[in-house]
Amino acid sequence: MKIIIDAFGGDNCPDVPVKAAVRAVKKLGCEMVLVGDSDKINSLLVSSGISDSRISVVHASEVITNEEKPATAVRTKKGSTLVVGAKLLSEGGGDAFVSAGSTGALLAASLFNVGRISGVRRPALAVVLASVEGRTLLLDCGANAECKSEDLYTFAAMGSIYMKKLFGISSPRIALLSNGTEQGKGNSILKETYYLLEESSLNFVGNLEGRNINLGGADVMVSDGFSGNVALKSVEGAAKMISCGLKNKLFKNYRTKLGALLLKPELKEFSAEFDYKQYGGAPLLGIKMPVIKAHGSSDEISYLKAIEQACRWAKENVNSEIEMYFSSSAESLQ
Amino acid sequence: MKIIIDAFGGDNCPDVPVKAAVRAVKKLGCEMVLVGDSDKINSLLVSSGISDSRISVVHASEVITNEEKPATAVRTKKGSTLVVGAKLLSEGGGDAFVSAGSTGALLAASLFNVGRISGVRRPALAVVLASVEGRTLLLDCGANAECKSEDLYTFAAMGSIYMKKLFGISSPRIALLSNGTEQGKGNSILKETYYLLEESSLNFVGNLEGRNINLGGADVMVSDGFSGNVALKSVEGAAKMISCGLKNKLFKNYRTKLGALLLKPELKEFSAEFDYKQYGGAPLLGIKMPVIKAHGSSDEISYLKAIEQACRWAKENVNSEIEMYFSSSAESLQ
Repeated sequence: MKIIIDAFGGDNCPDVPVKAAVRAVKKLGCEMVLVGDSDKINSLLVSSGISDSRISVVHASEVITNEEKPATAVRTKKGSTLVVGAKLLSEGGGDAFVSAGSTGALLAASLFNVGRISGVRRPALAVVLASVEGRTLLLDCGANAECKSEDLYTFAAMGSIYMKKLFGISSPRIALLSNGTEQGKGNSILKETYYLLEESSLNFVGNLEGRNINLGGADVMVSDGFSGNVALKSVEGAAKMISCGLKNKLFKNYRTKLGALLLKPELKEFSAEFDYKQYGGAPLLGIKMPVIKAHGSSDEISYLKAIEQACRWAKENVNSEIEMYFSSSAESLQ
Repeated sequence: MKIIIDAFGGDNCPDVPVKAAVRAVKKLGCEMVLVGDSDKINSLLVSSGISDSRISVVHASEVITNEEKPATAVRTKKGSTLVVGAKLLSEGGGDAFVSAGSTGALLAASLFNVGRISGVRRPALAVVLASVEGRTLLLDCGANAECKSEDLYTFAAMGSIYMKKLFGISSPRIALLSNGTEQGKGNSILKETYYLLEESSLNFVGNLEGRNINLGGADVMVSDGFSGNVALKSVEGAAKMISCGLKNKLFKNYRTKLGALLLKPELKEFSAEFDYKQYGGAPLLGIKMPVIKAHGSSDEISYLKAIEQACRWAKENVNSEIEMYFSSSAESLQ
């Protein structure tokens, strides 16, 4: 197993991607290809005293930033880590690609260079979020602002296979993210998708609301990339406001600080349980080979989780199963 | 000032609406009209020892439940509290109407009986949420799953006037709820709305994301009722998961219980700060007269807040200002 790492994506690069890759080699025993400015990567490896034949470096002179227009940047910056990494993946230089860089540019680079799974019109960005039942996969979280019902159906099928293979759920419950639980809720595209899912072999449980992302009811929640992104960011915002507010209360005075000290192990546990970085990165479902978007602010541990997830994704042949699902004429809507 | 109260809407009726109305009479000095089964309301008033000439009762024999189809229920149940209350409002029997019943039926009853402000094609359900900056008005939170750009523009203008009048913000910052902050983000309707808002006299600050609902950046966040509802419910779900998770940690063992005891006043304060019921109910903006949806699970205090809000809304002539805004030909898009 060989994982390609964008060493120059994310807030803390190349330190975090490189060090996480080094840890991954030790922990998982797989090979790593670090893509980026080779001088900088090599000097970081040397200064950290790392020399391992399972780590190789592929030079890429440019970096695409979050501020650039994804499609344009990918077209013009052929020497960027994202384009070089995606090309390497498509040419068999690795089994999966991980980047903490621009989501849009990672998607564009993957689409242009690796391509889509046959039967998938639009790949989706999927995010695993904590829920009271364990976790929920929410997709699409932003790859496609506007979707057809066939796209949502595709997301449901891909999400189901991903959760079955990576989380061992035998028959993942699929729900549509809607503005109410009753059948007939939602916009016209959602209503069409409802019928498609009802007729499918998937374990469709109907419409659920934004609250069910965290409060459970389904293993996979399906949305277009607009509302999915709104939901994801709303959850993030609420969690951040609450955790900051709580911290202010805990450090208010001596009494509260003593209370916080007594609760320290539980508060740490608590914050870890709800940190969605624990689940690794966000898979780009529908791209021919495994591509994972690690969180921009990943630390070594969460980046390592993203690499582990990429390894499992590749090992479990998730994409072959998705391809098989869509190639069976009964299930394909293309 | 006379407020009409649906005594048979919400989880704890008629107790909560009636007792909140009694408190409101004492606190605000305004009159209350309680709509519902007059025998039950009168016996509750008698058993509570309440006799006040400022409280009157109007009989309504039926109740519309959350499970009923709003438009059908409103058409067939002419004797329901929602229809009787809305009619009373339209006939001058009160200055505002408050209900904790079915949102859809309250909207339908208000539309059919009270009507829309001239220039408003679609009324919106607006919810005030806590943010690190104080609060954010999010609208539409579910009245219209599908909207045109003109509707979103109308929501922005109504939200701006509401926040100016009720929260004293001189020039409320208006943002579009989108899947990214850059101009050009969002679906086609949002992109059209962007141009409408840029050309308007409103203080438009551009696109913001779901996270900004709680983390600040705008006083009013505008959305169609589908994504607005998804955002609202996502925030609710995240807050509930976190508060339940935290409670479990606090009551884990003797040590954590002692810690929790030391933090008790701050935890109470904290939970109150983030409880959106503190801001009262959700105004139905665009209906000719003030109509407020109180939260279904309201207690006396939060129901009282909704009544106070209805009073202020009526006193501040918010709806006249909205009407004026749209009657000025330069601002009207109708």
